[in-house]
Order: sequence, then C-alpha cells, then structure tokens
Amino acid sequence: MRGAVWYGRRDIRIMDVPEPPSPGPGEVKIKVAWVGVCGTDLHEYAAGPIFMPLEPHPLTGKSAPLVTGHEFSGVIAEVGPGVDNFKPGDRVTADSATWCGECWPCRHEEFSLCDKAAFLGLGRDGVFAEYVTIPVGGVFHLPPEVSLQIGSFCEPTAVAVHALRRGRMIPGETVLIIGPGNQGLLTWQILNHSGAFKVFMAARKGMRADLARKLGAEVLDPTEVDVVAEVKERTGGLGVDLTIETAGVPETVSMALQATRKLGRVVEVGIFEKPVTFDLNDLVFCERELIGIFNNGGEFPQAIQFLADGRVDPTPMISNRISLEDVVEKGFEECINNKRGNIKVIVNCNKDLADL
Amino acid sequence: MRGAVWYGRRDIRIMDVPEPPSPGPGEVKIKVAWVGVCGTDLHEYAAGPIFMPLEPHPLTGKSAPLVTGHEFSGVIAEVGPGVDNFKPGDRVTADSATWCGECWPCRHEEFSLCDKAAFLGLGRDGVFAEYVTIPVGGVFHLPPEVSLQIGSFCEPTAVAVHALRRGRMIPGETVLIIGPGNQGLLTWQILNHSGAFKVFMAARKGMRADLARKLGAEVLDPTEVDVVAEVKERTGGLGVDLTIETAGVPETVSMALQATRKLGRVVEVGIFEKPVTFDLNDLVFCERELIGIFNNGGEFPQAIQFLADGRVDPTPMISNRISLEDVVEKGFEECINNKRGNIKVIVNCNKDLADL
Repeated sequence: MRGAVWYGRRDIRIMDVPEPPSPGPGEVKIKVAWVGVCGTDLHEYAAGPIFMPLEPHPLTGKSAPLVTGHEFSGVIAEVGPGVDNFKPGDRVTADSATWCGECWPCRHEEFSLCDKAAFLGLGRDGVFAEYVTIPVGGVFHLPPEVSLQIGSFCEPTAVAVHALRRGRMIPGETVLIIGPGNQGLLTWQILNHSGAFKVFMAARKGMRADLARKLGAEVLDPTEVDVVAEVKERTGGLGVDLTIETAGVPETVSMALQATRKLGRVVEVGIFEKPVTFDLNDLVFCERELIGIFNNGGEFPQAIQFLADGRVDPTPMISNRISLEDVVEKGFEECINNKRGNIKVIVNCNKDLADL
Repeated sequence: MRGAVWYGRRDIRIMDVPEPPSPGPGEVKIKVAWVGVCGTDLHEYAAGPIFMPLEPHPLTGKSAPLVTGHEFSGVIAEVGPGVDNFKPGDRVTADSATWCGECWPCRHEEFSLCDKAAFLGLGRDGVFAEYVTIPVGGVFHLPPEVSLQIGSFCEPTAVAVHALRRGRMIPGETVLIIGPGNQGLLTWQILNHSGAFKVFMAARKGMRADLARKLGAEVLDPTEVDVVAEVKERTGGLGVDLTIETAGVPETVSMALQATRKLGRVVEVGIFEKPVTFDLNDLVFCERELIGIFNNGGEFPQAIQFLADGRVDPTPMISNRISLEDVVEKGFEECINNKRGNIKVIVNCNKDLADL
C-alpha cells in the first residue's frame, strides 16, 4: 500500500509500504479515509524528532521510519478475535493514543497520559496510509450525520472539549481564546453553544482572524489593541474567568495570565519549542491557576455529538483537500510556508472513501 | 507610643509615633503582644518598596512612612460602636488584610484578594507598635490553649491551610514540601495530622533541615540527592500527588513540576523577586497544574484549632524572642544576614503581655 513515511527532519517519503497485518485479538484494521495535517505532525516534520522514537518504542517496539499522521476517519476493513461492537464497513474514527492498560494513568482512565503511550504516527505506524491496524479500545463509531471528512476532526474537537473540562468551565463564564488556529476555532464553536457569557479571541489579522469574525467571534488583534486592557474593560475590570491558550509562545502565556481574573484558570494547550520566561507573580498575587493539557482525556463521545448535530462545523476551516501523494508539498510544506493562509488541510488516503 | 516605622529600604526606625485613635464603628483597638518577623517584611526592608505605598493607598489613603508588621497577637483595648462579639481584655489575632467589601473578590469572600486590599504594615499602619486599630471583620478570638506567643503564628498557619485547600489535598495522598522555612514547617505539621500517606521535604542541610528531621519529616537534601529522582523512586515511579513550593526561585519551580505526578498539583506559595524561566512542557505533557496562592483565604478558624490542640506547635520554630526596641538589629538584620540560622523571630511589643 501507499504511505507517507517519516525518515527524518524535512524527509517524509510517499512510498510503497507493507500493508498492516490482519488484526489480532482486540484489534481492528481500518481503511483510512481522511487525515488532518496537525501541528504536531508539522513540528515533527520541521524540527523533529520530538516524539518520534529512534530507539524501539517501549509499548510497540517500533522506531522510525514510521508512517505519520493521527487525526483521521475511516471504515472498518477487518476485525480481530473478540471484537464484537465493530464490523467491516462501519464508519469510524479513533483516538491517536494507544496505551498499556497497566500504568497509573491507564488505571485512572487517562489513556493519553499512559506511561508508555504510543501515538499513531509517532510510536507506531500512523494513518497517512491506506490502512492501519490498532487496538479497538480507542475506536469510535461515526454517526450518519458525520461525513468522513468531518470525522477527521473528532480528535482535535475532543481536545477542545478536554480543555474546557480541565478548565472547569461553567455556564455563564467569560472566556478568552488565544490563537485562531484549528484548535482555537473548534473551541470557539463549542463555547458558542455552551453557555459562555462572553467569548473573546485574540488573533492577529489574516484569514484565520477573518474566519473567526465570520463565525461570530469577538476578535481582539494584539497588533491593534492591548488585549489584556481590552478584555478587562469588557469584563467590568475583572478579566475573564477562563483562558484557553493555544499559541504556546512566551508572550501569550503572560497575556493569558494577565487577562484572567483573580482565582481564574488558564488552560495551556500549546506545546513549547523552548523554555519560557515569565513573571510567576502574575500567578501568585492573583491566585490564578495554570493547567496543562495534553491530547484528549476520553472526550470523543462529546466531540462526536457536537460534530453530528452541527453545533461544531469545521467545514469552513478546511483550507484544502488533497491526496496522499501530495501530502508533502501541499500538506507539510504548504502549512509551514504559508501558516497564516491555512487552517486545516485534510488528506484523502483512499479515493473510494473520499465522498462518504 | 513606640513603633517600628518603614522609611525606605534598610531604613526602619524605632521611634515615638502617635497612638492610633479610638476605634470607629466596626473597629477595635488592639494592644499588641507578639509579632512575627515575616519574609514579606524582610523583602520590604531589604528590597522595598514592593507593596509599601508611596502614594496614598486606595483603601486607606495612607502612604509610607508606615508602621510595619502584620503576623500578630494581642488583647482588645477598646471596641468601637456596633462591635458586639469582642470586649476589652479579649485575647485575639487578626488577618493581615483589610478590605473594601465591595469588589468582586470581596463579594466572593476572598478578602485577601480585594482589589483595594490594605495589609497591615503595608497599606496601613501595622503591628510593630504598642497599639493598632483595625476593622473587626478580620479579628479572631484566641482560645485559652493558645498563648499570645503562639497566637502570632495564626496568620502563617492559615496560609498553610489555604495552600492545602487550594491544592485540593485529600487524605491518602503523597506530598512534597519544598523549603524548610516557617511556612514549610507549619505545612509539614498540618500534613502530619491530615492523612497524608507520605510527606517529603526538600531542604538543604542546616538548622532548618535539622529541625524538620527532628519533627519527623523525611528530608531530601538537593545538595546530596536528586530530589526529583528520589521522590519518584519512593512513590512507585509516579511522583507526588501534590507539591507545596515555598521557596520561590527558578530551580524549585522546575523541581516542583517534575517531582509531581501526571495530573498532579503544584501550589506556589513563594513570591518571586524576578521573572522565572522554565520549560512549560513540564506542565503540558503531564497535565500538571500550577496554582498560585497569596496570603490566606479565610482559614483562620482551622489554623487556630490546630494551634489550640497542639497538632501544630510552632514553639521549636521560634529562634529568638526579642523586644520592639531590638527589631531592626536582632530582627530584620539578623534574619537577612543569618537566614539559615533563623526560622522565626518573634517580637514583644508590650512587656505586660509577654507571658500571657
């Protein structure tokens, strides 16, 4: 079969690779439909190896070169022994994490934090390929209302729900989202239907900010206004109850803390390329909380429901639909070189599943 | 009356000052017994003004020079109109904060975070003096079991309880305390009676660490062992559920995050003298939380109970008892120049209240 294989920094090759084996007990083999190009993939392509194992992965024994990609939808091709709830032809998505089931996080059902977590495309072969075989534990059915294209957004939507859960958001609160990327825009759509009293989005001008405005977001451009001052003014001097920080750079961490009210929460969704310097008194003096999140925490059911009933509609965020053969040029390179001109590029891995 | 007045950095003067007026409605006048020399006082003496107002304070209209000091005990001298629950002769302590009663934090009973909070010795005259007049809202009775000397520890003990509340500590958890100062040792004593499964204390060798060991703490000396590795080894590879970080320096923030388990909480009690650089991926990848606290959050009743029944006994932490006339030389200067040789110096402000 065809697959996009990570060999090294700036070296992903579209090539023939062995089709994954028939599923073993508790596994399913999935024919891949659509895959989103994610920020994590881009980090690994441009600056990796970050998570990509060069030594045998502790859970899977695999190491680079590996097929990349993890945000996806597909159709069950084959089920292994003991799998009762899925059958060939079922339309599905899956968690990017696979896990050991034995460690402390697994025993607490925090599978993304598994001590040996192997993520698709990072600790085991991923989904920029025609087929993938994975444990059934992370696989979820897509309801009829969710197309396979939209199904590839389940994983980042689950992350967005997770951020709000970890941030202990309650109806009636005010929220600031920093960053108008895919994660920020999905979060905005969820908040728009979750009883948030006011939602602000900090976003520099460009097509992402334009889309945020078009979707109805109240955008504050940090090149035009003092975001912290503006948020405070529009919240009666308080600051927001909750900030979702998706950008992961030093300036936005300080902005997040300062724009949040006393005793408020900042959820950090971004991944940092280097150590960050900031004034921790911004945390201490106002008793703010800084809460890390990594991937999802089992929120696929909520995410799928939002996508099914249209409260979350990622369609306008799809900046291009490409084929697997073009993933390097029109996917990775395009997203890196024209970051502000793209939100989400999705990749079709089997032509017969392009329209389902 | 005599008082210790902050005039500027390294310039605190023991001098005659006007006795505070008779209490107005809702106020009490307190004859001061014992006052602890606190880290905040030392910061203000050595590196101030930090909180000390040079312009009129928004709540009180006061500005430096001001009588300093805030951790104290005393006896009611006089009560103002409308004060029913206190009478002259009552033995008391009080919150260091006074507040406006109108702002968002006040309406949420988070008085220390009042937008106009005026702390004793910082936004209004403090307690390194013979008398102080303050609003009754922050005043608490001392039960007979709590001597006036021990009563001066109510405020830092309340802060320690607050840190555990904000850290959402539950019985059976493992805890790391970083820093063997007064705050760390009070926290240790509370945890020793609060169902913590294991408590570690990170402390460099010296009299503070020696006292911690003598009290029963399991001390890890960062100059002798890798604290993070040691904590992980002694917690089955996990790290602790909760870390209370009292040191407020860059190395201890990283230590705190790394020694805490996935999804665990770090409470930051320290105040920072400058911006801190650390790897926020230590927060994000393990979904840890960093929670700021500032002063107490209304935990005086719990603190007073702990001191009354002896579960918390600060007596061994008192490294010297001095008189108000000696507070600069034997208090501020001694604590700064011989930091590791002192834990808590307490200051008597009225000789007739020295032994009550």
